[in-house]
Amino acid sequence: MSPSDQSKDFKTFFYTQTLDHFNYRPDSYATFQQRYVINFKHWGGSNSSAPIFVYLGAEGSLDEDLDVAGFLPDNAPRFKALLVYIEHRYYGKSVPFGSREEAMKNASTLGYFNSAQAIADYADVLLHIKKKYSAERSPSIVVGGSYGGMLAAWFRLKYPHIALGALASSAPILYFHDTAPQVGYYTIVTKDFKETSESCYETVRKSWDEIRKVASRPNGLSMLSKKFRTCKPLKKTSELEDFLDSLYTDVAQYDDPPTYPLSIVCGGIDGAPKGIDVLGKIFKGVVAYKGNRSCYDMDEYIRPTETNVGWRWQTCSEMVMPIGHGHKDTMFPPAPFDLNRFTKDCEGTFGVKPKPHWVTTYYGGRDLKLILHRFGSNIIFSNGLRDPYSTGGVLGNISDSVVAISTVNGSHCLDILPESKSDPQWLVMQRKAEIKIIEEWIAKYQNDLLEFKEETHA
Amino acid sequence: MSPSDQSKDFKTFFYTQTLDHFNYRPDSYATFQQRYVINFKHWGGSNSSAPIFVYLGAEGSLDEDLDVAGFLPDNAPRFKALLVYIEHRYYGKSVPFGSREEAMKNASTLGYFNSAQAIADYADVLLHIKKKYSAERSPSIVVGGSYGGMLAAWFRLKYPHIALGALASSAPILYFHDTAPQVGYYTIVTKDFKETSESCYETVRKSWDEIRKVASRPNGLSMLSKKFRTCKPLKKTSELEDFLDSLYTDVAQYDDPPTYPLSIVCGGIDGAPKGIDVLGKIFKGVVAYKGNRSCYDMDEYIRPTETNVGWRWQTCSEMVMPIGHGHKDTMFPPAPFDLNRFTKDCEGTFGVKPKPHWVTTYYGGRDLKLILHRFGSNIIFSNGLRDPYSTGGVLGNISDSVVAISTVNGSHCLDILPESKSDPQWLVMQRKAEIKIIEEWIAKYQNDLLEFKEETHA
Repeated sequence: MSPSDQSKDFKTFFYTQTLDHFNYRPDSYATFQQRYVINFKHWGGSNSSAPIFVYLGAEGSLDEDLDVAGFLPDNAPRFKALLVYIEHRYYGKSVPFGSREEAMKNASTLGYFNSAQAIADYADVLLHIKKKYSAERSPSIVVGGSYGGMLAAWFRLKYPHIALGALASSAPILYFHDTAPQVGYYTIVTKDFKETSESCYETVRKSWDEIRKVASRPNGLSMLSKKFRTCKPLKKTSELEDFLDSLYTDVAQYDDPPTYPLSIVCGGIDGAPKGIDVLGKIFKGVVAYKGNRSCYDMDEYIRPTETNVGWRWQTCSEMVMPIGHGHKDTMFPPAPFDLNRFTKDCEGTFGVKPKPHWVTTYYGGRDLKLILHRFGSNIIFSNGLRDPYSTGGVLGNISDSVVAISTVNGSHCLDILPESKSDPQWLVMQRKAEIKIIEEWIAKYQNDLLEFKEETHA
Repeated sequence: MSPSDQSKDFKTFFYTQTLDHFNYRPDSYATFQQRYVINFKHWGGSNSSAPIFVYLGAEGSLDEDLDVAGFLPDNAPRFKALLVYIEHRYYGKSVPFGSREEAMKNASTLGYFNSAQAIADYADVLLHIKKKYSAERSPSIVVGGSYGGMLAAWFRLKYPHIALGALASSAPILYFHDTAPQVGYYTIVTKDFKETSESCYETVRKSWDEIRKVASRPNGLSMLSKKFRTCKPLKKTSELEDFLDSLYTDVAQYDDPPTYPLSIVCGGIDGAPKGIDVLGKIFKGVVAYKGNRSCYDMDEYIRPTETNVGWRWQTCSEMVMPIGHGHKDTMFPPAPFDLNRFTKDCEGTFGVKPKPHWVTTYYGGRDLKLILHRFGSNIIFSNGLRDPYSTGGVLGNISDSVVAISTVNGSHCLDILPESKSDPQWLVMQRKAEIKIIEEWIAKYQNDLLEFKEETHA
């Protein structure tokens, strides 16, 4: 289904949402308009067999997700599902305090911007929808990717009475408070490069020293600016280093079929004319991927987009993922995660300290697998093992109904993107496995309902 | 074990607790000193077989609970358990804002006083204790009664990674948002009276009209004041009615062996001299229970104690239990729960509205049994069926490990009180059943740990 076909089926609503679910101060009672979108087209109606598929918005405007979350419309006809998409607070059109400017002003207005409040929002909106459409008994499956995947898993853990199950795609829920190795992310980026091309990997690995060497020369920064055709003259070496770092991690994380951008970068690097130096090769990689531009904007990855600004607050308050930047075992220069420095930086920006312990306190940490084994149920953790975030993912089955579906060649959130004729077989199989599991959850739920009805009548 | 024996084993600590767990506003970072008490006497040390028994404080000072929560010391030797008692925020010595006066000032300071914050406190304190004593792998069992029992069940639901199981004694977790019949509480009080003495029940049932009749006469209030030997002259009939209502519900709720106060009241009523009128009989009941006093304080049950004041806020914000006051099927005059009036009263007192939907949104409501069946595990719901709150309790087994243990003759929270030689056999059996289940949880947990260790080493 093409995006334009689908959009005419979207109906947009706004829910009057409570600013603070966990406080009764007078200012906690303030409300804001939270956007959600419904697609009724395939819905079988309010009965226990037609489910509600709920896409949980994450760190961006819902506009960006509606056409991207293909898993929902692709499977709606088969399940006769109602499709619901809910925007995350502080993103898109779901911003409290009257305006984005006010909402993002300082920690006093940003304080309500966190995952516990966000999943409580989702609980409220879903109960509202269920009531409005007499669908109290319709099983709901929450779906999300990356941070949204964490929200989906956490929603099932905290609100099992509202969602029957969760599809948590590429959710690094173990990447908190030292549950996963800090350098894991960059280790996988490195592995992806190595697997794609050993020589490409070698070139990148060597390039960092080269950059520093050139930079240390008289006029070194200007030479680097010229070499990498930067739109503005470099002021610091780190501007170039950070740009390249982001480019490499980006193509590794999203090394999606059918184009495989990592191969394009390495194609440029490896295909450079003979005799060209290391930095010349790197630049060829940039050009191969970005196209031949008049200049390259070193700020491309750090522009103050809604997502970048919002996510910066989230990581500076609650979502502290201690991702070590590099290590001698990676192709990146060593720069371990430094909680003290991170804390100082965040405090400098927002005036409040991150709470790196809270995620594992509230949702579980080191023992999460053990908990899910005995306690959780109905969660699919899907991961692509080429996705650097898979290092913080759940990669093995935990119980009959808390299951991991990993693909060796998969990248970030691939399974919840729209189906395409060019999809490789392993991706088709992954999605089929997910659908089968969700069907089983719904069948079991219907049995439970019957049993409970019988008990009530007995 | 007598209280005085035990108290020398109590060590008191204070934990620097976060005021608001779900917000990152600068004022959310304020802290307060939260009291907890540990009894190390029987602890087997930090290994997976010696558990931690955790008493979750409720609507009162921890001082009141330490000697009353007999289940913990009574079973500590058998389990080699570490005993931990944690005080609920805003009670006892665990009061934020520097003083009780400041903390209880208005909704701005009271806003942080709710169950979600309280169980997050418990999570923080428990993780702190586990770390401090290297007991990260020690299984913890949370125990609570009444509101504390709800907290125990909810803690297991929300923080399964921190507590292995919960003993929720007399927890009316279904008494929210119309999940249970509103008049249920008073129906059971009535049943208790009827079962104790049909004639006693009849006398009480008739008495309300008599009170109104006398009150409507000239000098009626003064006659009633004299008749009931009130310490101050009655200003309103309702002062007497409310006093009697509280007395009846109190003796029904706490109709504990070996004294059975309800029988004492009914003994007074039924044993009144022949020819005495209905109100004379009622007064004999009061005297039999309270003793022959020079006067009776009509404010006895509504004094602004710490518990009464705190609980009033809790019910006026979050813990909205729609307990209908009476009905034609009870021995009480009809006075159904009126949410509009209740909301108005609360708003008048605190300036903010109750949120009667929140408890069922956050913890589950109508479908709670279905959720617990598929999702929850390791919760004992214990109830005495003569306890009026049992009307909102879980009275049937939900799964293999979410079980109900009810006693036909039990009253409120009886099973967690200290053992006594005079305990009836059914109470001894109830406690034995609870202990057996907890032993099974711990054994299962040890198996799980082994399995996971093997997996890790494989």
